[in-house]
Amino acid sequence: MTPSRALPVSLADIQDAAQRIAPYVKRTPVLTSQRLDALLGAQVYFKCENFQRIGAFKARGAHNAVFLLDDAAAARGVVTHSSGNHAAALSLAARNRGIAACIVMPSNAPRAKVESVKRLGGEINFCEPTLEARESGVTAIIAERGMTLVHPYDDVHVIAGQGTVARELLEEVPQLDAILAPVGGGGLMSGTAIAARALKPDIRIVGTEPAQADDAFRSWKAGRLLTDIKPDTIADGLRTYLSERTFHILQTQLDDLVTVSEEAIIRAMRLVWEILKIVIEPSAAVPVAALLEGRAELAGRRVGVIFSGGNIDLDVLPWQRASGSGARA
Amino acid sequence: MTPSRALPVSLADIQDAAQRIAPYVKRTPVLTSQRLDALLGAQVYFKCENFQRIGAFKARGAHNAVFLLDDAAAARGVVTHSSGNHAAALSLAARNRGIAACIVMPSNAPRAKVESVKRLGGEINFCEPTLEARESGVTAIIAERGMTLVHPYDDVHVIAGQGTVARELLEEVPQLDAILAPVGGGGLMSGTAIAARALKPDIRIVGTEPAQADDAFRSWKAGRLLTDIKPDTIADGLRTYLSERTFHILQTQLDDLVTVSEEAIIRAMRLVWEILKIVIEPSAAVPVAALLEGRAELAGRRVGVIFSGGNIDLDVLPWQRASGSGARA
Repeated sequence: MTPSRALPVSLADIQDAAQRIAPYVKRTPVLTSQRLDALLGAQVYFKCENFQRIGAFKARGAHNAVFLLDDAAAARGVVTHSSGNHAAALSLAARNRGIAACIVMPSNAPRAKVESVKRLGGEINFCEPTLEARESGVTAIIAERGMTLVHPYDDVHVIAGQGTVARELLEEVPQLDAILAPVGGGGLMSGTAIAARALKPDIRIVGTEPAQADDAFRSWKAGRLLTDIKPDTIADGLRTYLSERTFHILQTQLDDLVTVSEEAIIRAMRLVWEILKIVIEPSAAVPVAALLEGRAELAGRRVGVIFSGGNIDLDVLPWQRASGSGARA
Repeated sequence: MTPSRALPVSLADIQDAAQRIAPYVKRTPVLTSQRLDALLGAQVYFKCENFQRIGAFKARGAHNAVFLLDDAAAARGVVTHSSGNHAAALSLAARNRGIAACIVMPSNAPRAKVESVKRLGGEINFCEPTLEARESGVTAIIAERGMTLVHPYDDVHVIAGQGTVARELLEEVPQLDAILAPVGGGGLMSGTAIAARALKPDIRIVGTEPAQADDAFRSWKAGRLLTDIKPDTIADGLRTYLSERTFHILQTQLDDLVTVSEEAIIRAMRLVWEILKIVIEPSAAVPVAALLEGRAELAGRRVGVIFSGGNIDLDVLPWQRASGSGARA
């Protein structure tokens, strides 16, 4: 951890967000398992955002951003690009405020996530699966309809909303020694780090990332934002890059950032399904994979793990794919 | 419901059981989902015994029976035959009391269930997958080692233990109009019916059973115990017959008993995984299937559903099998 310049989100912002979104999101349960503790070598508390509305933590940030809009902006609606969970989250938040949501979504987004947006009344505009195509699609819609962009992670209100997960977890389990979350665009990890550091200054905050989508890890090591890798991981929620904003937050707030193999992600996911009897998506298994591979150096400690979501296509499960092809499916 | 002769288990037995087993079993959560309510046409409260120790309600009955043994009997150990969950439950209960458990198990028992018994320290004696082979295996062990039989369902202490599920559910959701559980050997359904009828006399108690394992339904219609069918269902926990004891309890306590198709069981199971983000086994999906098919005539009512367990082999899921072969796998 290096000394920080002022952070763009404060604990007060997160506490305000918690109050603002309370009518629309669930307070999710924290699960434990002696059997998983034995396998992972730590005392682990699993915060189940897979049980959150729309099946992922993204409901929190989206509601905070949407309910912070003034009435004039709200009336024009909101727009975003997303690989899935943020899309559903923004659709729900917009519906709860009674406004329109337009979603620019890559053509290869998982079917379950597309259907989820449709069910929640979001309009979908499909685009090529590149960051450039998504961003130009959004720009066109803003120009045409005056909608407000709610970015999936590069947005202070979204980050404040995501920070409410760690706040709830630490309220329920204040004795945590460490907290782990997956790193994609960095919205969840930023909110987690700000909340956890403010509430418990000596807590160990560890980001976890697929080795096959390690832009955050490389940026962290280099000391500057790198986006020159092509993410290629089964953890579809983590196939995005940090922004300058989330990179700065992680750089100043994380104690460590570790990467895990695709094999460990799949094994961790299956263990959670088998032992905890809950459905999590591959992205959510990444922190468990880090414990499984011993990457986080937390043996015997009390560790909070944030399960980011549970949206997965149940037709074919990761461990059923041919070995080695899983990461490229 | 017909007037009853004295029942072999009382609410007091169930309340004693609750106290006796409290140190060893979990108080499982009750989940709800607006989306599932809309699909099922009722306001449903799901009691999650898939989160119970060993992944099924069976932990309750087994602990009640094992901790009721006197010291001399306990020292000789316990024995049972089981298709799976009761085997793991008895192994755990025996380990918690520090005594031996011997399990006579059919050779076609699911792998996950076999491994679960081994992990919990139970001894396994495999036998042919017939009721006769199981019973003669148990008889031999009792003769040889003096172990006490803890039957999976035809045992008043086991029934009293299983009744603690409904007791907890009604404590948490006293406004229920109806309660549904799956019917296999009838242990869970008997305990559920006795607890629910005693705590809330006007509640509607409905048994649910696969049409392809409908011995209880046929017996209920005939007014006498029938065991002349061959169960052939994906719901592996329900491939057993009622006993005279459980038949008598169901006959006097149930308001209705309905059957469901294999297709509905699979569809219900998948809906629960997708929407509630939890892993349930096919047997647990049977009451949901009854609501899905409109068999239980509970439109708009407040309905408690007992999810019996979550132990399933994750290698191949029911909806991935070729249509029509699922029931015969």
